[in-house]
Amino acid sequence: MASTTDLSTATIKQVDQVVDARWIIPIEPADVVLENHSLIIQGDRILDLLPTAEAVTRYVGKRHFRLTEHVLMPGLVNLHTHAAMSLLRGYADDMPLMRWLQERIWPAESRNVSADFVRDGTQLACWEMLRGGVTCFNDMYFFPQAAAEAALAAGMRAALGITVFEFPSAYGSGAEDYLVKGLAIREALLDEPLLSFCLAPHAPYTVADSSFERVALLADQLDLPVHIHLHETQEEIADSLKAHGVRPLERLRRLGLLGPGLIAVHAVHLDTNEIGLLATHGCHVAHCPTSNMKLASGIAPVGALLQHGVGVGLGSDGAASNNRLDVFQEMRQAALLAKVTSQDAASLPAHQALRMATLEGARALGLAEQIGSLESGKAADLLAVRLDEWDLQPCYCPASHLVYTVGREQVSHVWVAGMLRIDDRIPVDLDIQVLLLNTKMWQNTLLNQN
Amino acid sequence: MASTTDLSTATIKQVDQVVDARWIIPIEPADVVLENHSLIIQGDRILDLLPTAEAVTRYVGKRHFRLTEHVLMPGLVNLHTHAAMSLLRGYADDMPLMRWLQERIWPAESRNVSADFVRDGTQLACWEMLRGGVTCFNDMYFFPQAAAEAALAAGMRAALGITVFEFPSAYGSGAEDYLVKGLAIREALLDEPLLSFCLAPHAPYTVADSSFERVALLADQLDLPVHIHLHETQEEIADSLKAHGVRPLERLRRLGLLGPGLIAVHAVHLDTNEIGLLATHGCHVAHCPTSNMKLASGIAPVGALLQHGVGVGLGSDGAASNNRLDVFQEMRQAALLAKVTSQDAASLPAHQALRMATLEGARALGLAEQIGSLESGKAADLLAVRLDEWDLQPCYCPASHLVYTVGREQVSHVWVAGMLRIDDRIPVDLDIQVLLLNTKMWQNTLLNQN
Repeated sequence: MASTTDLSTATIKQVDQVVDARWIIPIEPADVVLENHSLIIQGDRILDLLPTAEAVTRYVGKRHFRLTEHVLMPGLVNLHTHAAMSLLRGYADDMPLMRWLQERIWPAESRNVSADFVRDGTQLACWEMLRGGVTCFNDMYFFPQAAAEAALAAGMRAALGITVFEFPSAYGSGAEDYLVKGLAIREALLDEPLLSFCLAPHAPYTVADSSFERVALLADQLDLPVHIHLHETQEEIADSLKAHGVRPLERLRRLGLLGPGLIAVHAVHLDTNEIGLLATHGCHVAHCPTSNMKLASGIAPVGALLQHGVGVGLGSDGAASNNRLDVFQEMRQAALLAKVTSQDAASLPAHQALRMATLEGARALGLAEQIGSLESGKAADLLAVRLDEWDLQPCYCPASHLVYTVGREQVSHVWVAGMLRIDDRIPVDLDIQVLLLNTKMWQNTLLNQN
Repeated sequence: MASTTDLSTATIKQVDQVVDARWIIPIEPADVVLENHSLIIQGDRILDLLPTAEAVTRYVGKRHFRLTEHVLMPGLVNLHTHAAMSLLRGYADDMPLMRWLQERIWPAESRNVSADFVRDGTQLACWEMLRGGVTCFNDMYFFPQAAAEAALAAGMRAALGITVFEFPSAYGSGAEDYLVKGLAIREALLDEPLLSFCLAPHAPYTVADSSFERVALLADQLDLPVHIHLHETQEEIADSLKAHGVRPLERLRRLGLLGPGLIAVHAVHLDTNEIGLLATHGCHVAHCPTSNMKLASGIAPVGALLQHGVGVGLGSDGAASNNRLDVFQEMRQAALLAKVTSQDAASLPAHQALRMATLEGARALGLAEQIGSLESGKAADLLAVRLDEWDLQPCYCPASHLVYTVGREQVSHVWVAGMLRIDDRIPVDLDIQVLLLNTKMWQNTLLNQN
């Protein structure tokens, strides 16, 4: 008997973490809910995904999570945000877009934005996002070095924008200066496994042709995605027609920017030809439904984009126009908007919303080999949601529950590259008091300027 | 000195409850945020609302709440739900409306709906709503007696539907039977201060002219509101044109049902003339934005309704089509939809959303003298929301925060008629295990039928 036991023990592999879950939605393969499976984590990677009944015979974890009432899924990808603007959450609401920008947001930014502002604001945003199951965000803002520091301090994955626009700011003197600074930051941080970079020309109306040409060249040379606000408002399109004789997307096409690396943020106002153009070039769209509604920009034609095969991920936009960095909310909103717009309740079903919030975001960022689904070899970026809260019962289908019923407050555990960042709803290694003090300080500064 | 102290003490009145709050939004007067005020509760009523600095010199409470980081506001009114359908939460999603009804919802109802189903489902719904700050709901379902029992057991205010439709069900044989039963229940419960009743003809396509005429007569005689699904889908209107030669609203007008007692639920498809008709007759609308989106019904013209002076309250609809009975979500959704539909980010500002979710709901139910605002003499139906959660900072404006930032999970305290129902997020006098067991039993029953 003793020898049998020894033999059996010998075949069991010790691993870093074993996560048993009542349900697992791996995203790839699509539309699947696994029951009573276990995810095996070794270092920063997913080693295996198998039925719990098998897992107990093959693996023993240094740490073992038994998530008996939970669903496990890949971490959410926030495909568009300005993280540091969390300090401007609710600073101005219910105002027409141009007054909101010109009278409130831009003046507040020009008075306050600094490396410290960006570090503190991004830190707040990172922890808000982590607590809500977001493990990776695509950022566009001033002082990306400070944003990078905040993301690394929080242990969060980030795609940082090498932001480009023509006008001067506290961060730099203009497009060339921003490019030089951004590229230097990228060089300095090339070895950080949690960080990647996008070229981030702000928008067609803030970037000159010559800068776009530089961006297109760099995108090719360095194999970087291009993250840009595009076709957000009717005004943007009218202005482009006046200034350039063509709509913004056509202008970008002529400048050589359309391709699989393009992340078109918002993409609200598109004609059929433009949807075809995005599809033909393999471009991606960052759909930000709440922001588009709150700023009255319009409703992106997500149904048509998906039909044409355009990859669509989800973004929260910045907290000044949302006011939550909450990708659960964006999943629900995307599904609801698609249904009402298409007049078809079967549009954008729950599994598709989950895929947009994970793998489609990863694909847009060129990170689909690393994250976005629970497959062996990928980074262990994942989240668990408790589905047993009494006031959310009954639960007939975990996928539907994730999109239509739970809120991010039900997120219980979050891992980034195998590192536990949220442990039974508690942030790991976060001094909340310091975070609150920093936030309060900026709030008081802003209030005293009014 | 001693005599002075005695005199001062003598002027202090002992009351049941004193609630100090960092902010109070009374709804009436409109658009006001009071800072550092106290609400005084005596019995089931609001006795006073005054600065905390004055309150300490005038009142001492048997119970004293010091809500130093909270905003206090009137309890939310859910102006349209089918509470018992909480047992069908997520039972079927992402299906076209008619398939959803015919293949899933109606068969499930016909196999399962009973007094027990309604009691258990309504109990679950009541506690979900209470925990999320809803203190009053307008219900339409089978077995209103069972719903009444559940609401009274939960200590929640309810307007119960005297439901009317032509087809037979486990609850009765047809319109006349439903009316007789509903009116008898109303008679039996006339003395319950938390309960009121609406006549609830289900919809134009399920109720005959003769029944509508009876409803109109009873509404006049008994001074009852009329709660009805109206102009929810294009199909409903097309069917009415075919069957009756007129659109449903015109049919109701001819049958004498338009008036200040009418609560038109959904009101998605309205032409300009119909909006005028609703305004002229002082009708109310129960706007259910999430349900209208999820079922792909359309977007109600709320901006135009408000411009014409139609009173618009907010409803969650049933949990089979939402899937949360969450009026915070409906406030945000109503504000966002109004902005994107009107192409004006200033549409439906935060204070207006708060008013729709409280006083406008109360007005529609004929309860505005009792609830809907924090004014002396009204019932003490109120809620407190904590605004100091670290991941929702900063907070520049409590009204905006309530609509755009917090979720119902930040509701900390809820009172109905002075009775504390939620105490620091914990339901008072609820056996959660029994609630969960009942829910699980129904869930298993339904699953075994698949």
